[in-house]
Amino acid sequence: MRGKEMRTVDVCLSPELIHLYPIHDRVVIVVDIFRATSCMVTALASGVEQIEAFATLEECLAMREKGYLTAGERDGKKVDGFDFGNSPFEYMHEELVGKRIAFTTTNGTQAIVKARGARKILIGSFLNLSAITNHLLAQASSVLIVCAGWKGKVNMEDTLFAGAVVSRIHTAIVPACDAPLMAQQLYQQASADMEKYLQPSSHLQRLLRLGIKEDIAFCLTNDKYDVVPEVNEGVIKLMI
Amino acid sequence: MRGKEMRTVDVCLSPELIHLYPIHDRVVIVVDIFRATSCMVTALASGVEQIEAFATLEECLAMREKGYLTAGERDGKKVDGFDFGNSPFEYMHEELVGKRIAFTTTNGTQAIVKARGARKILIGSFLNLSAITNHLLAQASSVLIVCAGWKGKVNMEDTLFAGAVVSRIHTAIVPACDAPLMAQQLYQQASADMEKYLQPSSHLQRLLRLGIKEDIAFCLTNDKYDVVPEVNEGVIKLMI
Repeated sequence: MRGKEMRTVDVCLSPELIHLYPIHDRVVIVVDIFRATSCMVTALASGVEQIEAFATLEECLAMREKGYLTAGERDGKKVDGFDFGNSPFEYMHEELVGKRIAFTTTNGTQAIVKARGARKILIGSFLNLSAITNHLLAQASSVLIVCAGWKGKVNMEDTLFAGAVVSRIHTAIVPACDAPLMAQQLYQQASADMEKYLQPSSHLQRLLRLGIKEDIAFCLTNDKYDVVPEVNEGVIKLMI
Repeated sequence: MRGKEMRTVDVCLSPELIHLYPIHDRVVIVVDIFRATSCMVTALASGVEQIEAFATLEECLAMREKGYLTAGERDGKKVDGFDFGNSPFEYMHEELVGKRIAFTTTNGTQAIVKARGARKILIGSFLNLSAITNHLLAQASSVLIVCAGWKGKVNMEDTLFAGAVVSRIHTAIVPACDAPLMAQQLYQQASADMEKYLQPSSHLQRLLRLGIKEDIAFCLTNDKYDVVPEVNEGVIKLMI
């Protein structure tokens, strides 16, 4: 049990800091609450067979030839010529069951690409919070939560998700340094009413200007889905 | 007054993120609470003529030939062969009045070096908190607080200082994105008893292992000195 006793949890508040963390022996949780990882969790829980994450629009569109549907978002908006944007409500339809989707977003898919090389990469969101934390507690590795942020800068909602995870696992998997402690403290302040707490945040304001209030409320809902999506060589599927 | 109305304050939680911020038109406050900027503020307030910040031990030692005293710290410990380490109590002595010091530390001096190119660079600590915030309110530029952190990772104490500054100026100089809001929220939790709040933090534990409890209490004292140190071409002096 020695390995289990020494497990730690750390939080990388921006993908631009990921080089500071040894990831080859960690379970990495990538999170982009508004809205990439919330969409991915919704899609896979709704029956989508697999999702592939791409850093660029071009790589993503090229997957059409292989029979993929395409999802493209930049600066919070759907990209012209793509089948889907970045709203979780787009990914609940029955006609998507069994389909494959090529996905590219401003932040979330970039973070997934940067996490390559980790022992295991999982996709986290409030929608599958308990499924993720239960899985972390049941396995033997240390944990790194990678927040997608906004164009390299830290953001509140991804940090709050990290804090929610740390709050639930910290007695078994101990905070490695200050970032997980900071996230945990912020989550404790915010957890009673996250939507209200996030009101002044820059990304929430950006999304509200785009008129997607329903997306915000949905993405902040705990435990809508009992699924753990895993990334293997760029392909995201539900863990077997 | 148009310029003044549009002022913003942002927080760069790690020097490794500084490339994300336009600094040429900003006043940058560099902070390394434990303990580089606390030492610098103490030294200059105690009569030291000027301090030069260097990234490497070698550059720092080479300044001896020019009549400088040397201060060197790595991993929280004084470096062999240097005149001083990184405790503010070393910088209060009368014999330092009028002297020049070449300074290199694990984090703080690196952050100062990375801030080159800013409109103005100031040195912040709790010891000169009011002097810094009064200066910021009285000038016309937007503000970026650069936290030195610990080897690229974010830390709690520098983030709390950023939060203290944001708390004091945010009605006049508005938070630019989520990092200043997060810092402000954490400071609101912590301000009643910062030493207690910081107990679980990684750097505090590291310093306690080195037996420098007095340094910690001193570095968390507000407004000990009414000084604003400014960096010009690597040379730190009190603002005239």
